[in-house]
Formats: sequence, C-alpha cells, structure tokens
Amino acid sequence: MAGLVSASIDSELGGEVSVETYDVRGIGVVRSPLRDLEAAPRQGDEGAPEAELVFDEEVGPALQGIGAGSVVVLLTWLHRANRNTLETRPRNDPTRPMTGVFATRSPDRPNPIGLHTVTVLDASPLTLRVAGLEAIDGTPVIDVKIALGSPETR
Amino acid sequence: MAGLVSASIDSELGGEVSVETYDVRGIGVVRSPLRDLEAAPRQGDEGAPEAELVFDEEVGPALQGIGAGSVVVLLTWLHRANRNTLETRPRNDPTRPMTGVFATRSPDRPNPIGLHTVTVLDASPLTLRVAGLEAIDGTPVIDVKIALGSPETR
Repeated sequence: MAGLVSASIDSELGGEVSVETYDVRGIGVVRSPLRDLEAAPRQGDEGAPEAELVFDEEVGPALQGIGAGSVVVLLTWLHRANRNTLETRPRNDPTRPMTGVFATRSPDRPNPIGLHTVTVLDASPLTLRVAGLEAIDGTPVIDVKIALGSPETR
Repeated sequence: MAGLVSASIDSELGGEVSVETYDVRGIGVVRSPLRDLEAAPRQGDEGAPEAELVFDEEVGPALQGIGAGSVVVLLTWLHRANRNTLETRPRNDPTRPMTGVFATRSPDRPNPIGLHTVTVLDASPLTLRVAGLEAIDGTPVIDVKIALGSPETR
C-alpha cells in the first residue's frame, strides 16, 4: 500500500508537469453475469444487470455504514482498456468526429478508471449486491465512496 | 504506462479476492491558491476557489473537445492522504459515530482517489481553468471524464 512508486523529474526542475506514478491496489472484484466487453452496455443506466462486489477481507471495516438503499460511487480498474488511446469516436459511432478521450467516457484512456453510480440492494460483511452495473465479471474494484447528497445532508 | 505491476495470488487459486496492483500515472497537476489541507473546503461546492489544471504535453490530444462550459469529472491522486485509514468520523465531527471510509468522502482510504465535478471556465491547449475545486495546489491529476448528461445526449 505504499504511495509513491517512482518519480523522475520534478515540475520545478525539468519543465515536465508531472511524471509520478502511484500504485493502486485491487480491493475487491466485480462478479457479474456480463462475461465479455461486447455484451456490456455502455453505461449502468442502459440496461446493465445486477452484480456483486466481493471485497478483500482486509478492507472489510471500511464498508461499515453501507447498507441496502445506499447510493455509492464505485471506482473500478478497467483492466481490458487500451492505455495508449488519446482520441476516439464517442460510443464508437463512425459519424462522430475524433474526440479527445478526456471529453468522452471511453474506457480507453491513460489511467483506465471506471466510475459507476450504483444503488446497493443488499450488504453482507464482505459483499455488496448492486443494481445496474455495466462492468464485466472480474473487473477489479479500487474504491467506493458514498454519493454526495445536498450539502445539508453531509 | 504498463498495466499490471505485480500479482501474487489469483482469486481462483488462493482464496484471496484480489491482490493485484496497478500503476496510475500523474497526467497533470492542480494549480490553486489553496496551499494546505487546513485551508481547503471539504467539497467543491462549499466555497472552493477557481484553479488551473496543467497537463503533461503527452496527453494534450486527449483534451480535444473540452472547452469553456464543459462540465467534467476530475480524478486526482490525494497524495497527502493516509492509505491505512479504514474507519473515520464523517467530516471529523466528534459527535458522529466511527464509519467505514467507503461510506464517507474522506480522502483517507486505501486508494486515495479524489472525485471532483467541475465546470471549465477556459481552455487552452494544455491548461483548463475550472471553478470550485477543493484540491490543494500540487495535487496530481490522474483522469478527466466528461460529465454524463441524460442518455439521449451521449
């Protein structure tokens, strides 16, 4: 769980803005009936199925307070993505112009982190069952955050 | 930009759910008048200032299509966070019970990824000026995604 893995040129020294690399650890995994990318909808609200998030025992205490009805933002590591892609056609639509990946939701991007807002249907100590998740079976889970309501409810 | 850094026990083999580690590369940096964590608001809509996102030349093409008025989800690496924290009191409020970090928005968590929805005020080839960002100066940027509108507008 160490933070900084490597650092070469500092922004003050070399003109490069940022060259640090950090290690992200898988903390769990998606279990889903979606087995391949071709079968997966593009977003969770486009017909995605229920799925289970199965967590490492080590992070179990971090799940305390999440229960049925919680709305959470799930972060995944899109392990099948192409990290060298910088431009794409949104939704692979050939009629749309080439667009920078940061202006899209393409999984192909330098750091392929998936962002999914999902509702928890059921929670047990190391497993959350969630509705409407478009990530495929085996996708690593890297973070969970409670969704933000209005400022008064924080 | 390699994907998998290390893998020890596969879920099928060892009973561990997930032990892989991935490398996330800084692609830019936050430039902000916020210089320390104590001065930073807890969320972007709680009085956070304008900031600049300055990107590595290498990812410049990925920014094509983002302009003034774009609403984007910015992902940062919260380099000052404590990665060993699993439980906390939300908003450091001593009257609130200890809660798992995944049920909060605490920066302290196993993978300290910050999530910020911000509006772009101005865009130049390697810089985005954004409104309402609570991340402190020097925070590494790791991803940008266009915010999702309704399904028809994707």
